[in-house]
Amino acid sequence: MPEVPMRTIKFSVAYDGSAYSGWQYQPDRVTIQGEIETAIHSATRSVTRVTASGRTDAGVHAIGQVASCRIQSRLADRDLHRALNANLPFDIRIHSLDTVDDDFHAIRSATGKRYRYVVQDGGIRDVFSRKYCWYVPQRLDIEGMATAAKQLMGKHDFSSFETSGAPRKSAIRVVRHLDVSRKSSVNGQQVVFEVEADGFLYNMVRIIVGTLVQVGCHKKNVTWVGDVLAAKDRRAAGTTAPAQGLFLLRVFYN
Amino acid sequence: MPEVPMRTIKFSVAYDGSAYSGWQYQPDRVTIQGEIETAIHSATRSVTRVTASGRTDAGVHAIGQVASCRIQSRLADRDLHRALNANLPFDIRIHSLDTVDDDFHAIRSATGKRYRYVVQDGGIRDVFSRKYCWYVPQRLDIEGMATAAKQLMGKHDFSSFETSGAPRKSAIRVVRHLDVSRKSSVNGQQVVFEVEADGFLYNMVRIIVGTLVQVGCHKKNVTWVGDVLAAKDRRAAGTTAPAQGLFLLRVFYN
Repeated sequence: MPEVPMRTIKFSVAYDGSAYSGWQYQPDRVTIQGEIETAIHSATRSVTRVTASGRTDAGVHAIGQVASCRIQSRLADRDLHRALNANLPFDIRIHSLDTVDDDFHAIRSATGKRYRYVVQDGGIRDVFSRKYCWYVPQRLDIEGMATAAKQLMGKHDFSSFETSGAPRKSAIRVVRHLDVSRKSSVNGQQVVFEVEADGFLYNMVRIIVGTLVQVGCHKKNVTWVGDVLAAKDRRAAGTTAPAQGLFLLRVFYN
Repeated sequence: MPEVPMRTIKFSVAYDGSAYSGWQYQPDRVTIQGEIETAIHSATRSVTRVTASGRTDAGVHAIGQVASCRIQSRLADRDLHRALNANLPFDIRIHSLDTVDDDFHAIRSATGKRYRYVVQDGGIRDVFSRKYCWYVPQRLDIEGMATAAKQLMGKHDFSSFETSGAPRKSAIRVVRHLDVSRKSSVNGQQVVFEVEADGFLYNMVRIIVGTLVQVGCHKKNVTWVGDVLAAKDRRAAGTTAPAQGLFLLRVFYN
């Protein structure tokens, strides 16, 4: 009987982070990586380590996280995809799965990422989105935040927008897209931020949002965001917006 | 010191039913009525029984449930509204609160209700709406369901669409509105039913949806729904759609 072949798979996964202690495997904690590795083991008997494009913190969600791993299985991609979803809890769903070149690596091969951050500004707190947005009691000034956000576009040292502690060679990143808009919904009280960059520092999106919200509620003026950037000092920026409003939307690869 | 005045209040309340054993108070169970009565007691020291327009089952949600109670408090409506929300968990929120005539009664004064039912039809099950919709694996035929639904409009004996056990004088109800539409969303896989009637039998909306979905996935033809109605027999209809897709949208009063 021939040996079971080894291959590299890449998959896109959505998850509701509410019930998890983040992406990264931790013994004695329920994590998304841990659940996926258990599902792979149940479906294939493979013991593997799954690598995501980036670790998401406890409570952070993903619509299009991308992960890869080496796997030993005779199952075709389509069958493996189904088997994994059959073994995963309903708050983690694999949306696509493909066999890729062995040199693919979910972190190193990524050329960029896009995040979404959702805020409810004012009104009675929505009972259905409480785990999927940050509730801010004041109505926010969208125009002001959009204008302020322009100062963060392009290549900059984002040291002011980084929680220290994570290893990285440089704090220079290129923000390609930063959009602030009011989403039309029943109550009209949802503000959506979308940020795309070649890479992100630790908590970068959450600190950008926490800083822009200072402008949105008129505690700071529009040009202050440029001063925060120039300071290259975390203490200059606003608070870190809470985890539950953050969604990893998409990871880009060549 | 004058006695604390007694009055009747009416309030509109939204809740995420996921964590509750339904509306109705039960000892040793966490219920929405129980949480609201506890919050009223914390805010006013009043011991009261709250009456809703109708009891919702475990897992059923409300956007605009209406309830009333007699209350002894010096707090103005606006302050009482805030105090109750401050004492309620975030998955129950009061949206409005008013003092009304003492002859107001949330059940007897109601002239109609509107419910929404949400289905995800096909695709990968959405991780964020799993507690807020019914997942059906097949793509549903909206036109077919909308045509079939027309047979349920107007005044009929809805015995086929009733789970037995709840006391009621008659099974005759007037359906004023029954709409089936595909909601434009990112994946386009959400089907929304809206049903308005002068009153509802027990599980009526869920059995209507379970029956229409039989037509939507082409297990039954469009005219079958008329036969189900004419049968006046629960066994003629489709299954009872699950609780988590159902939302009490609005209650009408004169």
